[in-house]
Amino acid sequence: MKYKASIYVTLKGSVLDPQGSAVSKALHALQYEAVDDVRVGKYIEVRLRAASDADAGQQVERMCEQLLTNPVIETYSYTLEATA
Amino acid sequence: MKYKASIYVTLKGSVLDPQGSAVSKALHALQYEAVDDVRVGKYIEVRLRAASDADAGQQVERMCEQLLTNPVIETYSYTLEATA
Repeated sequence: MKYKASIYVTLKGSVLDPQGSAVSKALHALQYEAVDDVRVGKYIEVRLRAASDADAGQQVERMCEQLLTNPVIETYSYTLEATA
Repeated sequence: MKYKASIYVTLKGSVLDPQGSAVSKALHALQYEAVDDVRVGKYIEVRLRAASDADAGQQVERMCEQLLTNPVIETYSYTLEATA
């Protein structure tokens, strides 16, 4: 089975996000005064082959922990979609 | 009303994604041979105040076109969630 995993990586809430603050300031400068807060993260799309939904999920979680995220300062969530 | 907009910015399909290729190679090196393709994009969370769902959507679309994305090489999608 083929899967598309959509992985969202965000900084933990307690971690300062300078990129988000910069975007927030830029939006205020452009007159978007209704913006209260901005956080910037990563969106990673992985296409992979796996025997089952459970297998695909396990692979994605291992990848996230080994390579795609820094568990000290980031958290992640993901959705899986069978594509074939 | 307060809203949380989750914005996903990805490179258009026809645009080369060197960061995605690098991640894909790194995953192969870590024995994830079932990985076929990786694309890396941005995930931006904007908290804003707006009069209605439609108003919030319009603001988010304007922000994306003016600042958050490069429409030449990127596309975006977003979801809106009322938080209060």
